[in-house]
Amino acid sequence: MRAVVATGPGGPEVLRLADVTDPTPCEGEVLVRVRGTAVNRADILQRRGLYPPPPGASEILGLEAVGEVVGLGPGAGAGPRPGDRVMCLVGGGAYAELVAVPAANCIAVPEGLSWAEAAAIPEVFITAYQGLVRLGGLCPGDTALVHSIASGVGTAAAQVCRAIGARCIGTSRSEGRAEAGTTWGAIPLPVPGGEFADRVRDITDGAGAAVILDLVGAAYLAENVRCLARGGHIVLTGLVGGRRGELDMGALLSAQGTIVGSTLRGRTTEEKQVIMREFAEWALPLFAARVLEPVVHGVMRLDEVADAHRLVEADAAVGKVVLLVGD
Amino acid sequence: MRAVVATGPGGPEVLRLADVTDPTPCEGEVLVRVRGTAVNRADILQRRGLYPPPPGASEILGLEAVGEVVGLGPGAGAGPRPGDRVMCLVGGGAYAELVAVPAANCIAVPEGLSWAEAAAIPEVFITAYQGLVRLGGLCPGDTALVHSIASGVGTAAAQVCRAIGARCIGTSRSEGRAEAGTTWGAIPLPVPGGEFADRVRDITDGAGAAVILDLVGAAYLAENVRCLARGGHIVLTGLVGGRRGELDMGALLSAQGTIVGSTLRGRTTEEKQVIMREFAEWALPLFAARVLEPVVHGVMRLDEVADAHRLVEADAAVGKVVLLVGD
Repeated sequence: MRAVVATGPGGPEVLRLADVTDPTPCEGEVLVRVRGTAVNRADILQRRGLYPPPPGASEILGLEAVGEVVGLGPGAGAGPRPGDRVMCLVGGGAYAELVAVPAANCIAVPEGLSWAEAAAIPEVFITAYQGLVRLGGLCPGDTALVHSIASGVGTAAAQVCRAIGARCIGTSRSEGRAEAGTTWGAIPLPVPGGEFADRVRDITDGAGAAVILDLVGAAYLAENVRCLARGGHIVLTGLVGGRRGELDMGALLSAQGTIVGSTLRGRTTEEKQVIMREFAEWALPLFAARVLEPVVHGVMRLDEVADAHRLVEADAAVGKVVLLVGD
Repeated sequence: MRAVVATGPGGPEVLRLADVTDPTPCEGEVLVRVRGTAVNRADILQRRGLYPPPPGASEILGLEAVGEVVGLGPGAGAGPRPGDRVMCLVGGGAYAELVAVPAANCIAVPEGLSWAEAAAIPEVFITAYQGLVRLGGLCPGDTALVHSIASGVGTAAAQVCRAIGARCIGTSRSEGRAEAGTTWGAIPLPVPGGEFADRVRDITDGAGAAVILDLVGAAYLAENVRCLARGGHIVLTGLVGGRRGELDMGALLSAQGTIVGSTLRGRTTEEKQVIMREFAEWALPLFAARVLEPVVHGVMRLDEVADAHRLVEADAAVGKVVLLVGD
């Protein structure tokens, strides 16, 4: 098959298409003919040599795929059937024409969606749902603070908030990008200097944010704690702004607050299965009804992967950069 | 009534007995004739002027009381009845002959226990139960790391672990005090230099601790994160070792870990009610069967309160220092 390989750690120029051996589905896995995948920040870190794949995962980049099931490994009979259109999370290997995926980590493509639209769903919507609802406990009427609102996760999170009946405040370093969530009712909060706690307190009449979905990390830790509501949750899913920061544990105690670290990639197959089933039950009807909508910034072909990485690294995309695979 | 008053913020010498106005039970409160109370670290901080009582709470020290109900405020009819022996959590006011308590925050004294034994239960056993089980999700077979194992909360936590069927590793700065948990099967871990993460990894064959119950705060934050099991919880309930520390969010993410800040005192009446009901259902039969045992280091009288504070401040007590009140 054709797949993206890296000639070494480095910039986007290390990525190129090559002929590699087809994957073979192992116990409990299905083989998927990939129709679409998408660029995630983790891919960029992995390309730079900063985020090695978990043990046992493919060395090929790509954490999500959509496509048709074309083969079943041993013991995969209870899952999706050949010909089914599926969305998958994988530990790696999705920048390719074929990928072997645990049957348990496939869910159906929502009705009426194209491959490009479907490819913009799995990582970001499951991350947003898991972070806000499962880990954060977001309830109707709550306020969520979503950083990097123009990112793939951010635009998904704004929609999850609206679907739940919660209010969303969406930040971005750039004034223009902070507007990205307004389509779904999010309150834009530009944070050019990285300060937002006082504004979040103002907007919430002093109460603070019940859930904070954060891909930034160290640079925002102090401000996140300062504007956390009593009993609130900071859900940390990325470290774009550094990994080490000073934590005011006195403020965390006073707030009876929680900080949860969580990445989808670090979850086991079994954990992903639980998360994906719950997500599918909640989200698939909402996608079919267009209450939730994939946010596709651009669609490129797999051989344009280097340019796709450049686009994401430049923080120029709103929503997802999708890579179509095959005909 | 007689109660302990403070002549100003300062050392134990500011505490003295004085005649003060009897409290009046408000809506939903009962009046309790106090038979016993106990010294908590929060009392010492409050005496020093570092931990003001929450809004509406009594200025008199004392966060827990045992005694008999002697009066009912309006609307308190569904709770304990006059003559009932109760254990209570209060926002303050327990170093006194009478205290007004929300009826919802009283639970029955376990059968067969003296006032002194009962007075050693509420704060520390509810804190340990809430931290390990409700917030930490401790399960049979898990390993808990309990800091300050010789403290009131520590000796209670060792017993909660044993009752749950979980393993307990108990630390103390002092070699002798680290042994305090062995009575209930805890593994002693002296930490004279404040380093413990490597030893916890060794003891758990690399897995780390599923739940860490921490009263120390800043001084232990880095080591706590280093020895947290995958999916584990650090439950922060005190700040004896400082409030600001550097958090390695990369390590927290890799561990899919959680940090929860929680104090009983900061909980609302309604939250305390939920916690206390659940605790009572689980713990009262275990106290009656002597599976759980109050750990009474010493029993003093209310007029000896200054010496009781000195004992707790010197870290010389194993378990609780109880103050008996009245005849």
